[in-house]
Amino acid sequence: MSIRTIGERGERAIPSMNPANMIIGQSGGPTAVINQSLVGAVLNSRRLNDRCRIVGTVHGIRGIIEEDFVDLTKVPERDLERVARTPSAALGSIRMKPNEDDCRAMLEVFEKREVGTFYYIGGNDSAEAALLLQGVADAANYPLRIFHIPKTIDNDLHGSDHTPGFGSAARFVAMTFIGEDLENRSLPGVNINVVMGRDAGFLTAASVLGRSRPESGPHLVYVPERAFELPRFLEDIENCMQKYGRCLIAVSEGIRDAEGRRFAENLCSEVDSFGNVQLSGTGALGDFLAEKVRGNFGPAMRVRAATLGYLQRSFIGAISEVDAAEARRVGEVAAELAGSGAQSGSVSLLREKSTDYRIRYERIVLEEVAKHTRQMPEAFISPEGNNITPEFERYARPIVGDLPTVEYLDAMAA
Amino acid sequence: MSIRTIGERGERAIPSMNPANMIIGQSGGPTAVINQSLVGAVLNSRRLNDRCRIVGTVHGIRGIIEEDFVDLTKVPERDLERVARTPSAALGSIRMKPNEDDCRAMLEVFEKREVGTFYYIGGNDSAEAALLLQGVADAANYPLRIFHIPKTIDNDLHGSDHTPGFGSAARFVAMTFIGEDLENRSLPGVNINVVMGRDAGFLTAASVLGRSRPESGPHLVYVPERAFELPRFLEDIENCMQKYGRCLIAVSEGIRDAEGRRFAENLCSEVDSFGNVQLSGTGALGDFLAEKVRGNFGPAMRVRAATLGYLQRSFIGAISEVDAAEARRVGEVAAELAGSGAQSGSVSLLREKSTDYRIRYERIVLEEVAKHTRQMPEAFISPEGNNITPEFERYARPIVGDLPTVEYLDAMAA
Repeated sequence: MSIRTIGERGERAIPSMNPANMIIGQSGGPTAVINQSLVGAVLNSRRLNDRCRIVGTVHGIRGIIEEDFVDLTKVPERDLERVARTPSAALGSIRMKPNEDDCRAMLEVFEKREVGTFYYIGGNDSAEAALLLQGVADAANYPLRIFHIPKTIDNDLHGSDHTPGFGSAARFVAMTFIGEDLENRSLPGVNINVVMGRDAGFLTAASVLGRSRPESGPHLVYVPERAFELPRFLEDIENCMQKYGRCLIAVSEGIRDAEGRRFAENLCSEVDSFGNVQLSGTGALGDFLAEKVRGNFGPAMRVRAATLGYLQRSFIGAISEVDAAEARRVGEVAAELAGSGAQSGSVSLLREKSTDYRIRYERIVLEEVAKHTRQMPEAFISPEGNNITPEFERYARPIVGDLPTVEYLDAMAA
Repeated sequence: MSIRTIGERGERAIPSMNPANMIIGQSGGPTAVINQSLVGAVLNSRRLNDRCRIVGTVHGIRGIIEEDFVDLTKVPERDLERVARTPSAALGSIRMKPNEDDCRAMLEVFEKREVGTFYYIGGNDSAEAALLLQGVADAANYPLRIFHIPKTIDNDLHGSDHTPGFGSAARFVAMTFIGEDLENRSLPGVNINVVMGRDAGFLTAASVLGRSRPESGPHLVYVPERAFELPRFLEDIENCMQKYGRCLIAVSEGIRDAEGRRFAENLCSEVDSFGNVQLSGTGALGDFLAEKVRGNFGPAMRVRAATLGYLQRSFIGAISEVDAAEARRVGEVAAELAGSGAQSGSVSLLREKSTDYRIRYERIVLEEVAKHTRQMPEAFISPEGNNITPEFERYARPIVGDLPTVEYLDAMAA
């Protein structure tokens, strides 16, 4: 082991490092299955190389800079399996875009510990952080390989059919709306639920997966992919009230007006270091919309608004088995890429064109995942822009799994 | 069958009626197991009397006035069992305090159909409605027997150890806080969750049931039984941040200041016909408290607020088995009371003084349940008024059932 001063490119020898010396971290919003990926990467790394020394960094890249590590080399498999079934980042998470100084500080730690491999479990912001670190390592001629392991409940990463974490959050949202629909049927009125989704409507769209009858809600679904117009919203509700005598609504936290301005942004002002405005963890958008509905329908109408909050990504009672297995597998695949000498990259999930549901895992370059997000395809949104199509349901059902069924008393169908 | 004009007492003969002609209805806020009570009463009534003719009234007492009924006499047991497992009132619910005209209108329908037995599943407001109806029936010499079947997620009914519906809602709250604690641990800061509970803190207290380690949250719990003071609240948070570096908080929607004024009432103005202000279905209280915390700690502190909303009472993935069985049993017991010729009343749940958990069911008079609510005993609240005692945990655990366990990485204990 040797500590070197990091200087100009060319002034220094190739530093000594060992690909079996590994660091793994978690970043961004936690998911219910993010620890499956952690445990998949750790156990497979240990299996593939019995000289593997792997530590977890506490709170993502901050833990590297502060050398706050957890030794994962010898933690018993049995304990790790229990961690895998626990929601939310076991190593702690962070939302931090490293600057050049941060990256150099990390590189010093990598050199000191002769670390050759860094696994970073996260979304597009975490891929961007990985890319920044990679750039500084390359410039310093330090042979670091970074494997980004994808997670996000928003399902908005580029380069994959879907992303681990989405299936369980979607399952929670679908189960929530089963209950909300029964509530709305018991005590009719307008019921608005705000679902996570800053730029993409996948998670809000999952609200429809528990619908079991033509009259089941949600009856209206609004996603960031389509401009949200208040007069149109109120008209949609009027039509729904006439048809069903009640109205259950799913709204993405990220809905925007025709000029692309997010409604929630005027109601909230906190911004993280990646430039993301905090939209969750506040009831402001739901209360704003409920107020508009009350203003339109008068005080006799029962109007309720709720914001699902962080339950969506950390609830322990709604984990999708398929999602958990895929989250495990992306971690394992990252370890296989590391073991086989592959270059830095991210693991992508591609759906086979077969009748049954099958996923293929491939390495893609970090640039493909970093920064940008994807939105739902046109075909998933109804032409009117206020509902979700059966095509989305076919896409999402295998990822979310079978849902609990409910029974109505038949004379009470409406 | 005969329709009579209801006149002064003494002017009319005793009307003909049949105790085997029954109406059953549901009222107030739904619960996850309220249909167990419905199915328990219906199936047992059919079993105990093969001449039983039982109809469900749609949306509680409104369905009686409007003669909106569902025939439950011949619905197959198999279908009813699926209804029993479905959360939220299958017959539809209502929040309506009947006036004398409403009661007379109902009585006309009872006479017309020669109904002798009315089951009403609900909380204290529903018991009050039953009592008003009973008074009008008695005055008219109509031999109506009313059996109130208790339900409430708030657990605030008089005369019982606890109430069906509480156990499942409490289970959902406990599971939610397991996830919220993992979230708060991954991304530290102040996390405020507003839980239902207008007058009693039982449901908010259930937030502590998933705590598995000394450092597990919620770290602070505020209930309506104790005056809530903002300066003290901010001081509690400061102490918690110093101790754990993070702070997870459970707050009842019904918290009050030292003068007994509810904080949420200034933020919301809808009132139902029983005089209850609508506290749920809005994020205002959570956002208000979060704003105060931000004002105290500055923008560097991560502060999030969420309001659990109706998921608490209708979520399909967190039903307590004990709660479901007890909800079924109170319905069955009501049918047994009706079948044995007992007078009107409500079913109370009393806990046997034995080492294992055992419940005895008894008839109590409607007056005991109607109108008033009970609060948590002193012994369930910490002396400081900002936490919940192990005595509450011993009380609630058998009702809520075993909870999922989680695993920490040991070096990451805090």
